[in-house]
Amino acid sequence: MKKPISSSDKIVIFGAGLVGTLLGILLAKRGFKIEIHEKRPDLRHKIYSSLRSINLALSHRGWRSLALAGLEEKVKEMAIPMPGRVIHDTQGIEKYFAYGKDGQAIYSVSRSRLNCLLLDEAENLPNLKIYFESKVEKFAFDKSVAYVADVEGLRQRIEADAFIGSDGAFSAMRYEMMREDRFYYEQHYIEHGYKEFTIHPGKDGKWALNPNGLHIWPRKSFMMIALPNQDFTFTATLFFPFEGEKSFKKIQNPDQIKSLFSDEFPDFMEIVPDYVQQYHQHPDASLVTIRCAPWNNKNFLLIGDAAHAVVPFYGQGMISGFEDCRLLMEKLDNNPKSWSELFADFYSFRNKDADAIAELALDNFIEMRDLVASPDFQLEKRIEKEIVEAGVADWIPLYTMVTFTDLPYSEARKRGLEQAIILRQIRESSNWSSLSDAEFRLKVLEKWNTMQFRTPEGIS
Amino acid sequence: MKKPISSSDKIVIFGAGLVGTLLGILLAKRGFKIEIHEKRPDLRHKIYSSLRSINLALSHRGWRSLALAGLEEKVKEMAIPMPGRVIHDTQGIEKYFAYGKDGQAIYSVSRSRLNCLLLDEAENLPNLKIYFESKVEKFAFDKSVAYVADVEGLRQRIEADAFIGSDGAFSAMRYEMMREDRFYYEQHYIEHGYKEFTIHPGKDGKWALNPNGLHIWPRKSFMMIALPNQDFTFTATLFFPFEGEKSFKKIQNPDQIKSLFSDEFPDFMEIVPDYVQQYHQHPDASLVTIRCAPWNNKNFLLIGDAAHAVVPFYGQGMISGFEDCRLLMEKLDNNPKSWSELFADFYSFRNKDADAIAELALDNFIEMRDLVASPDFQLEKRIEKEIVEAGVADWIPLYTMVTFTDLPYSEARKRGLEQAIILRQIRESSNWSSLSDAEFRLKVLEKWNTMQFRTPEGIS
Repeated sequence: MKKPISSSDKIVIFGAGLVGTLLGILLAKRGFKIEIHEKRPDLRHKIYSSLRSINLALSHRGWRSLALAGLEEKVKEMAIPMPGRVIHDTQGIEKYFAYGKDGQAIYSVSRSRLNCLLLDEAENLPNLKIYFESKVEKFAFDKSVAYVADVEGLRQRIEADAFIGSDGAFSAMRYEMMREDRFYYEQHYIEHGYKEFTIHPGKDGKWALNPNGLHIWPRKSFMMIALPNQDFTFTATLFFPFEGEKSFKKIQNPDQIKSLFSDEFPDFMEIVPDYVQQYHQHPDASLVTIRCAPWNNKNFLLIGDAAHAVVPFYGQGMISGFEDCRLLMEKLDNNPKSWSELFADFYSFRNKDADAIAELALDNFIEMRDLVASPDFQLEKRIEKEIVEAGVADWIPLYTMVTFTDLPYSEARKRGLEQAIILRQIRESSNWSSLSDAEFRLKVLEKWNTMQFRTPEGIS
Repeated sequence: MKKPISSSDKIVIFGAGLVGTLLGILLAKRGFKIEIHEKRPDLRHKIYSSLRSINLALSHRGWRSLALAGLEEKVKEMAIPMPGRVIHDTQGIEKYFAYGKDGQAIYSVSRSRLNCLLLDEAENLPNLKIYFESKVEKFAFDKSVAYVADVEGLRQRIEADAFIGSDGAFSAMRYEMMREDRFYYEQHYIEHGYKEFTIHPGKDGKWALNPNGLHIWPRKSFMMIALPNQDFTFTATLFFPFEGEKSFKKIQNPDQIKSLFSDEFPDFMEIVPDYVQQYHQHPDASLVTIRCAPWNNKNFLLIGDAAHAVVPFYGQGMISGFEDCRLLMEKLDNNPKSWSELFADFYSFRNKDADAIAELALDNFIEMRDLVASPDFQLEKRIEKEIVEAGVADWIPLYTMVTFTDLPYSEARKRGLEQAIILRQIRESSNWSSLSDAEFRLKVLEKWNTMQFRTPEGIS
């Protein structure tokens, strides 16, 4: 069980989704013998039209992991940069807010196209084999054995040096671990679900909205977002309560739907004339946060959503899984004594960051659907911009730390909370209306200087 | 699915443990056709010597449910009353604290003997049949069907009007519900485990300690308890951290065990001379809290530990399951329209009480292992006793509400929290040392009168 890691080791990965396939590529490139078992059929032969696949917003951490696999350039070709948010109010008026500095953007990518690319790349590697419609049924953690079954139900015993479960939020490996003693587990669905809409191209055959932005219709208790696709469509997603006054449960007939959209999304109605039909045809889907501990059990490891599924509001779900892959490779470079030691070490090192991104993602839903439209929030963002531009401190906005740096999520969250306190203190310390840009800047710096004595530990 | 409840309905119960068997009896007495499927062999033919079965402390709510089944008297014959706690300090000195008023006691009962009695009673009913070694494998919630398999793996399809999962903390029905959309689930192991010891009879062949008490050796971060058995033994349980300075992990060799017991449990060592051997032979077991929501899915219901497993420190684990049974019968008396309506109603009505007893049980561990030995705690108990005896208010001590009344756990917890604040305020408002009993009483009443203006809402 504790034998040293050797380059001839066999590693079995469960799940040929985005994270599992990338991990397979990274491990295969180091010479290990890789088998990936995926319970579904090959995605490339049969595109699932589940209509339940919030678009990906790829950002820094994601690119770094793709670069490690040598795939950054290929993926960039299928990506549309979104350097900022475009906020739509109930009058249909748009406001643009850059995400970061010039050149900083998140990228809209099709989840299934990226998965197909990764599968193609993976299958080009001689020491990597993918088995589709191969469902894992049972694990023997003590024996380093798993049992998989094919579509006919024929069971096969697999021995390997290590097993990694990247089989998603409903991971079979995790369900087995859950029955082991002292395994902490929690699945928590939020009160909102989501429903997808397609925004078709406009009359000129091009995008009906500015493609270089993530569009948000924030409505306090709910919101719509839209991300561009390369075929000139957008994928829009309505995040909406399951129950209550305005909810999937209450809004069902065409009149109710029309009334909701004309009150809340008048500009959206115009570019999506079949919104009533889409509302009816597309399913409501739920959103879950999954926390568990530990992720490792002897030579078995959970990774990505299988270990830490988060809500999609920070665009870090898959990306945190991609980052898991990179960090696992870095740990592997430190010559761990055995797979079980590597997995235990990876878990202890990484779990606080998974907890942090789960919280950040829940918080960002409130920011996106509510705060983003509030004058106080916008004022604080403007104050923050001045602080950053003045370069007066080692200050990085929270969104930037999460999206455009590699800082551990837990550190980003800690610093973000500290910075939020300071921003609120500065905002509340004065009246900011009717100031010129120059006066505003001067006042921020002045306040900042007096604040130095009141800043929490860790911010200098 | 929504057909009315009829007395000829068939109800299938999973689990022939304490709760499932009692529920079977109660439902069978109302004329329903009952099948109980239990995955283990018949307990009565083969006593499981798992050594992992904290004794039962039966109290009011438990007796009420047993009375409903006409079994109160029979069970009382196998029960030993424990009217108070006996606290052992590190010098081996004992102090006795009554649990309630005269005549109020909790009762030590053997879990397996009680289960055997219930199984015998159940099998005497003509419309109740128990199938042992019948393991449920799959559920079809939509079709009101379950699939069970016998020891040979032969699968059988069972149709019924209702299905109730009383299959314990690791409920198979709950694992299936967990895969349904929007099911909340959490399993949380505490950092302490437990290990059982047997205290053999003394030289005179009788109990080595006073049998009319629940013995506690509180040691702040851990504790030992002991409950009497009718065969003149006691079952003792060490609740001890799994990890850390003093823990199951650290204390392993005979010297370490001896040193622990001579420092902490000198009087226990004397009456359990083979404590080192028992420490080695008896397993460490873990303690879990399980919360989930909802407990119902169409004609399927979770009950007892399957719905809400709690840690054992309030002695309310099985008892809350017994109370579930009684409350379900009361709901059934209200002529619900269908089983699914009954189950939905039962869940909405009962879940806050399950949450409350889970918290109360966790809190009571701290009380038992730590507070109980603190002078402040003992002083507050004495103040509380004066308040109760003076009858100045509608005041019932928390332990009494939980143990000797039927108040919903959630209400008991709320009132208990409010009362705790008042007790602390009274204690902190004065110096209580060197007062005679009469002076003490007078001062409590005086403080109580001034407190009237500061009491939280809900206490008058």
